[in-house]
Amino acid sequence: MDTRDKNASRATSAITRIVVLGFGNIGQALLPLLCAPSGPGVPIRLIDERMRPEQIAQIERARPPSGGPVPGWRRQRITRDNLAAVLDGEVGPGTLVINLATSIGSRDLIEWTQQRQAFYLDTCIDPWDYQDGVLAQADNTNYRLREEVLALQAAQRAGGTPQPTAVVAHGANPGLVSLLVKRGLQMLAAREGGVGGALAPQTPLDWARLAEALGVRVIQIAERDSQAPAGGRRPDEFVNTWSVDGFVAEALQPAELGWGSHEEGGPMAARVHHHAQGCRAAVYLAQAGAHTPVRSWSPGAGAFTGRLISHNESISIADFLTVPDPAQPDPRRPRYRPTVYYAYHPCDLAMASLGLLAEGTRAAIRAQRVLKDEIVSGVDELGVLLLSDRHPALWLGSQLDIDRARALAPCNNATSLQVVGSMMAAIAWIEAHPRAGIVESEALDHDAVLAHAAPCWAPIVHAFADWHPQPGRAVRRWTLDEFLVRPD
Amino acid sequence: MDTRDKNASRATSAITRIVVLGFGNIGQALLPLLCAPSGPGVPIRLIDERMRPEQIAQIERARPPSGGPVPGWRRQRITRDNLAAVLDGEVGPGTLVINLATSIGSRDLIEWTQQRQAFYLDTCIDPWDYQDGVLAQADNTNYRLREEVLALQAAQRAGGTPQPTAVVAHGANPGLVSLLVKRGLQMLAAREGGVGGALAPQTPLDWARLAEALGVRVIQIAERDSQAPAGGRRPDEFVNTWSVDGFVAEALQPAELGWGSHEEGGPMAARVHHHAQGCRAAVYLAQAGAHTPVRSWSPGAGAFTGRLISHNESISIADFLTVPDPAQPDPRRPRYRPTVYYAYHPCDLAMASLGLLAEGTRAAIRAQRVLKDEIVSGVDELGVLLLSDRHPALWLGSQLDIDRARALAPCNNATSLQVVGSMMAAIAWIEAHPRAGIVESEALDHDAVLAHAAPCWAPIVHAFADWHPQPGRAVRRWTLDEFLVRPD
Repeated sequence: MDTRDKNASRATSAITRIVVLGFGNIGQALLPLLCAPSGPGVPIRLIDERMRPEQIAQIERARPPSGGPVPGWRRQRITRDNLAAVLDGEVGPGTLVINLATSIGSRDLIEWTQQRQAFYLDTCIDPWDYQDGVLAQADNTNYRLREEVLALQAAQRAGGTPQPTAVVAHGANPGLVSLLVKRGLQMLAAREGGVGGALAPQTPLDWARLAEALGVRVIQIAERDSQAPAGGRRPDEFVNTWSVDGFVAEALQPAELGWGSHEEGGPMAARVHHHAQGCRAAVYLAQAGAHTPVRSWSPGAGAFTGRLISHNESISIADFLTVPDPAQPDPRRPRYRPTVYYAYHPCDLAMASLGLLAEGTRAAIRAQRVLKDEIVSGVDELGVLLLSDRHPALWLGSQLDIDRARALAPCNNATSLQVVGSMMAAIAWIEAHPRAGIVESEALDHDAVLAHAAPCWAPIVHAFADWHPQPGRAVRRWTLDEFLVRPD
Repeated sequence: MDTRDKNASRATSAITRIVVLGFGNIGQALLPLLCAPSGPGVPIRLIDERMRPEQIAQIERARPPSGGPVPGWRRQRITRDNLAAVLDGEVGPGTLVINLATSIGSRDLIEWTQQRQAFYLDTCIDPWDYQDGVLAQADNTNYRLREEVLALQAAQRAGGTPQPTAVVAHGANPGLVSLLVKRGLQMLAAREGGVGGALAPQTPLDWARLAEALGVRVIQIAERDSQAPAGGRRPDEFVNTWSVDGFVAEALQPAELGWGSHEEGGPMAARVHHHAQGCRAAVYLAQAGAHTPVRSWSPGAGAFTGRLISHNESISIADFLTVPDPAQPDPRRPRYRPTVYYAYHPCDLAMASLGLLAEGTRAAIRAQRVLKDEIVSGVDELGVLLLSDRHPALWLGSQLDIDRARALAPCNNATSLQVVGSMMAAIAWIEAHPRAGIVESEALDHDAVLAHAAPCWAPIVHAFADWHPQPGRAVRRWTLDEFLVRPD
């Protein structure tokens, strides 16, 4: 963190107002933290197309730390067509717009907030409309969504004028896990006594060279959620520990992953689809992530079979850790890049609910439920798993359990608290760095942001393990073929 | 039921003693019914290789209705080699041997009990050893296991002397569902005003001709279990509402199904494997049932995606309902046969536990648990789904819920009570028909057996529905391709 920026932000608060779009699971979990004594202490507005009585009741119970007015709210659907008209009177310079709606196109909203000199934060780059089950083309990929935001960033940087900070795709994952990757690389470097000043890389290329020097081949975001309620679900009900719409949308996107420079040959290499434009750090499979079982490991769960769910961080981390080959103009063939993807085992009731997506659509879902108050036990074990040629497997992340999450913040479970804890850290970073323009999580100062989020992620643990997806193998290869569970 | 037999059995009881092999989930559920006032009222012996303290405590609490001695028990593993020696002093003429162990080869035990003039009952034809994940050959199929028993039956019938009754594979399913199929065919016939005296078929061929006349193409055993406990499972724990060993064994067998005469052509027809010997009524796929999603329907759950788990009744019902073609010597090409298979959605925690079988082995299972007392809600909806060219889909079966199951019998959940209720009906049938030799469920008098089991299956409901696995189709075909969910 830059000390001058920090002092400047203390003198005059950069964020003067917060407008939250979408008051669902994460919005409801965030509000108590925004209103806590440690929160930003500015007026809050909440906009959602539904605003059911229990949502309104929660808002009316909330009070900012100063004892000021309760948050304002508005029942309003935001579309591509009414975006400017609806937000015109809500957002001005100094407003932080937090986009938590899955139905608002992030790129357009970022562009509009930048024009308004407003700040921006979201936990995922959303399109205006997800196209469930569109698998065989790049249209429905997170890659495409990210490239649209990168194009906006590039145009802005070309303009040269510093712009208000917009932190994109910064929740738990995508988000804080990118900073755990940095921390994990430093931990591996420390095992080697520090690879040539590697303990304090400065530029993205420094980080990429460090990962290369450490022989890191695969980075999984490895999550095993064991939270469970009393009782079951209706057969046509989709149950999850966070937004059902959000999870279903990503589970029905093509499986996407950052594509490592070591992935030469093999059956899977022949099946992946490359992109024609953009950073080209990632590829996709013409199959839904919900239907792509993948081998993973976490310290509490041990070996488990998750799903390779498309996520922004798979692409952004792989892009961030790319060492280009100056002699090779094809960006698909860098000197170094790790393979990066999300291996997710949601809570068991969500795992069972995935049966409703068997047809590749959400048509079989007749009801949905986000587990919060009815959870009786469980841990959301969420971390990064760094797999290297030269080191044992390193898992670094959170083992937050439901009891601790509840004790820390009302209206939360372990999953939501990891997200909103990360968002609160990002808000502090925006306050300290108000003119950073559009940035991804990888660009944030990981020590400061991790320190801010740590209480909401505790216990943060790390474990080294002699793990390989094929336990019997004499020679340990790290290609995708070793990890994917093939259908019979 | 034949009235003379019934009266005869009342005069002198045929069954004089009961020896139960295996005192796991089903044995523990059966004991209270055996000791109830309506039970057989004969001495009971329980043999299991484990006999943990809580099992012994349950036995010591049990008393036969006459107030006689508590059941005897013995801690003993039974193997191929010690079978005769262990059972020699336990089993004689008039003893009913109930085989509930998954590790005792049914065929050998049936042969031995027949030699001893003892009665026999099991809920599944088990081998001495399951071969998990052996998929590409017929070795590990239920078809082979059934053919071995049929060979024993054929040899016995060739001998001409009436033998003690051995009811094979008669639990809930396999078992009572075969009798529900008969009842369901009669219900469809009644819709047509009775197809030429079809309301009272006598021989197996009569039943097969009735199914043919009704245009029945597919018979699913359609089960959706929604029983759920408070809380979840450990990540490496396999949780189920009945024997984990039993379910895992069948889930890792190849998917097997009775193969209908209408299944000509299509991608799946090209992928099935036929058998070289035997009745040839069934085929198998070189993929585990656990990994074979299939579309099904039940009245409570609506459309659901189950797994095509190999089961004896898929084969025996298809064999029973075959109308041979006298002009065609190839038994794979009968004039008529329905496609028959089990479409099973176990309870959600079991569905999630199937993730532990992703590698096609049980190696990832470190603990197992059968849900009984900790269930807080749910229904085991188990029935037969008859799909015909000429009638709406008919589902007929049990919607027994956990509360009713508990009220009816201690030590039970809905799943176990359906099994043991069916077994008690079979015991009554053996008592009434003590010299029937080796018989399958299809041979039992369905009115009497269903009436006996009905209290344990209540409510037994039926529903007609305009259901097809591909809702949008203008032309409704009933081939396997319509039902199987393909991997991406």
